[in-house]
Amino acid sequence: MNFRLIIRVLGYILLVEAGCLVLPVLVALYFGEDVWLSFTLVAALCAVLGFALSHTPIGPKDLMQGRDGYMAVALAWLGLSAFGALPYVVSGAIPHYLDALFETVSGLTTTGATILTEIEHLPRGVLFWRAETQWMGGMGVLVMFLALMPKLGGGSVHLMRAESPGPIKSKLVPKVGDTAKILYAIYVSLTAAEAVALRLAGMGWYDAVTHAFTTIATGGFSVRNASIAAYHSTAIVWIITVFTFLAGVNFSLFYAALRGHWRQVLRSEELRLYTAVILASTALVCLDLHVHTGEKLGASVTDAAFQVVTIMTTTGYATQDFALWPVFSRMTLAALMFIGACAGSTAGGVKVSRVLIHFKNLRRDLARIIHPKHISVITIDDEVVDESVVATCHSFLVAYVVVLMAGALIVSWDNLGFEESLTASMTCIGNVGPGLGLLGPAGNFSLLSYVSKVTLSLEMLMGRLELMPLLVLLNPATWRNR
Amino acid sequence: MNFRLIIRVLGYILLVEAGCLVLPVLVALYFGEDVWLSFTLVAALCAVLGFALSHTPIGPKDLMQGRDGYMAVALAWLGLSAFGALPYVVSGAIPHYLDALFETVSGLTTTGATILTEIEHLPRGVLFWRAETQWMGGMGVLVMFLALMPKLGGGSVHLMRAESPGPIKSKLVPKVGDTAKILYAIYVSLTAAEAVALRLAGMGWYDAVTHAFTTIATGGFSVRNASIAAYHSTAIVWIITVFTFLAGVNFSLFYAALRGHWRQVLRSEELRLYTAVILASTALVCLDLHVHTGEKLGASVTDAAFQVVTIMTTTGYATQDFALWPVFSRMTLAALMFIGACAGSTAGGVKVSRVLIHFKNLRRDLARIIHPKHISVITIDDEVVDESVVATCHSFLVAYVVVLMAGALIVSWDNLGFEESLTASMTCIGNVGPGLGLLGPAGNFSLLSYVSKVTLSLEMLMGRLELMPLLVLLNPATWRNR
Repeated sequence: MNFRLIIRVLGYILLVEAGCLVLPVLVALYFGEDVWLSFTLVAALCAVLGFALSHTPIGPKDLMQGRDGYMAVALAWLGLSAFGALPYVVSGAIPHYLDALFETVSGLTTTGATILTEIEHLPRGVLFWRAETQWMGGMGVLVMFLALMPKLGGGSVHLMRAESPGPIKSKLVPKVGDTAKILYAIYVSLTAAEAVALRLAGMGWYDAVTHAFTTIATGGFSVRNASIAAYHSTAIVWIITVFTFLAGVNFSLFYAALRGHWRQVLRSEELRLYTAVILASTALVCLDLHVHTGEKLGASVTDAAFQVVTIMTTTGYATQDFALWPVFSRMTLAALMFIGACAGSTAGGVKVSRVLIHFKNLRRDLARIIHPKHISVITIDDEVVDESVVATCHSFLVAYVVVLMAGALIVSWDNLGFEESLTASMTCIGNVGPGLGLLGPAGNFSLLSYVSKVTLSLEMLMGRLELMPLLVLLNPATWRNR
Repeated sequence: MNFRLIIRVLGYILLVEAGCLVLPVLVALYFGEDVWLSFTLVAALCAVLGFALSHTPIGPKDLMQGRDGYMAVALAWLGLSAFGALPYVVSGAIPHYLDALFETVSGLTTTGATILTEIEHLPRGVLFWRAETQWMGGMGVLVMFLALMPKLGGGSVHLMRAESPGPIKSKLVPKVGDTAKILYAIYVSLTAAEAVALRLAGMGWYDAVTHAFTTIATGGFSVRNASIAAYHSTAIVWIITVFTFLAGVNFSLFYAALRGHWRQVLRSEELRLYTAVILASTALVCLDLHVHTGEKLGASVTDAAFQVVTIMTTTGYATQDFALWPVFSRMTLAALMFIGACAGSTAGGVKVSRVLIHFKNLRRDLARIIHPKHISVITIDDEVVDESVVATCHSFLVAYVVVLMAGALIVSWDNLGFEESLTASMTCIGNVGPGLGLLGPAGNFSLLSYVSKVTLSLEMLMGRLELMPLLVLLNPATWRNR
């Protein structure tokens, strides 16, 4: 493990955070709020510390390896969370540090679970920071750093690999820095497009920008207590549905589309399955609401589509208290929380491409029982999936299920309810946001003990970083016999 | 696929079932109940049909392959269930055939979920058959057939492999027939020992034998409405706890013990983990009951140990309505339902040895990130686990989770509750018996629709046969381009 290099990366990341903290300062000043000072103080602290750490001397032979990438990403996210929580405490918006940490981790990991019971009375600067953390975490802070300042030396690809989601990590273009720039360009464009669309649909600029931040990041924090239901506008609901759907698509497909490779986009198996699951789930939820609540068939299409998309993309906005929906709809939403959206998007969960690989592998195993001598490979979009990727998908699923169950067990000690405990763990590791029952869109996570909050914070980080970086960090074997 | 051979096996299995149906005839005659006639009729039907099918002509070159084994086992279990349900309908004990089928599948698969709301008013012959189906299914009907009549010709090992649970299927002795005989000898001895112990503890012979049947099979059907709580005897509870625990142990360890290889028994990693999980879960459940219900610490040891053992071994008896326990205890029981007991036992669930392989593989993957060039193998009890076994464990987990979620979704349409739907699917695929909530030990499965009952019946069969046989049967690709 090359710790000098890792510490240096941590320094750079704190500098990025310092830069990000400037925005809420400006917002607070614009609205004439006192909190500008809290943000300025924390930004200064991050800048000083970041400057010092980023000057850790490294030799010309210091090259980042895969393990250093995992470790750097894990530590960077812990650092970002630890310092990102400070403005909440310093400004007095969230008095208890562990609550502030939960809210920050929930932001950075684009989860959107909140311990706040009352949102709208908070200063706009604070709510802007809350939305911005989601935008920072959506595409990734290390990816942002690589886009801004790619000259870390060799091996920076390992940082990108460890931070970006999905089983197959491909560079769009040969250079890591260029890939990062392209990703951020798409990300910024989508965010800007949505902000404009929301503004045109009647939102103010402040609401439009913060919601664009949290949509494209598939985060789900809202500046309103009632989330999207507060705007009473079907146009706004559909704009957000469409952009949330887009945010759940593999960003490499946007790049393909920009280069005119539409065939590649339309033939993407992951995109097709993702779309099919959303359409089928929406139809089934509508049918369930019709059969079990007597709602007229079709009357609930907008709400059903919105909730299905927002949950499957692990965003987590609400227009309805879906915790009160009939059981089938709740079970469907829980299944979608587990699956998540496409790899290479800003969404969480297991990811559709992994589900695809699992299904294809299972089909292959069944075929092998019938034709034992037949040897075949798994392909996605006509490309062979390496067997090591299949094996890694399996380990990922095992780790995901183990963390999910362990989290549910710890949370269940709070004795809130079975549905609550299980979906709290599910929604946090999947980076979704709301759970079900008392932790549904109308409830919130302040009901939980600090043990549960810290557990769920760790789960959110594990889910966002796809488990391995934090498991490497927490594995005692990593620290033994180095 | 060699269908002549498969049909011949089906014939033999129906003959075995005809033989098994003789016992309830004798019991009914002994107690002077009219139902002896129903059982005689069905036994005759099975005998005639079995005789005809078992005379399907096969050539000297007809040899059973792996795929034939899977198919034969899948069809045999469907056949056993279909005919085993008839006595319930013919005798009028369970009027609706699909209910009778659910009860029979629940019996044969040693699940123990019931649609009966009132048990004790049923004729003793019927309740004896109900308990006997569990005993038949526990060690396996095809294994019974191989023990009685091993001269099927080559390839009968495939039948045994497809029916017996666990990732690694080893023969105790070179000959399949001898292995089957040894397994049944251990099975019969344990059953006899428990029946005697229960008799000595105060049960009548009828109750003692039926409970011994359903304990050693890890089934959980009781002849009493209140299950084991009906006897108000701590001695009986502990006898059943001990024998249930034993029934969850890999039977090859009993064989090792009989041959004096105690070292092998004591060093078994699976046995150690199984024991550790039971002890830890019991302690935690006691603590939870103490903290959240105010029960005196230690007062609940008997109930906690009993429920932990009976759920982890997927037996499913009750001395307490654990559906009313605090959330942590319920979540623990749900996790134990998922894990199950040891491979090569009569228990269901994922099995402890698979969990062990998953953990070791995950640890290896984490180590590989730190030392990418280090190549290592997974060992259990100092023996190398083949990589193909690791891969199969993974496919198994994927299939298990998919079936579990699909089942929960279908059951959730009945709108009973989230906890009910999920644990119904969990308890059936895990062959446990009771679920939680309304489907807990005090409730029963008659609340569900027939669609749910058929779905859960399929899940029970899938769980008992460890998924692959039924998935091969249901896979359209199996029937295409043969």
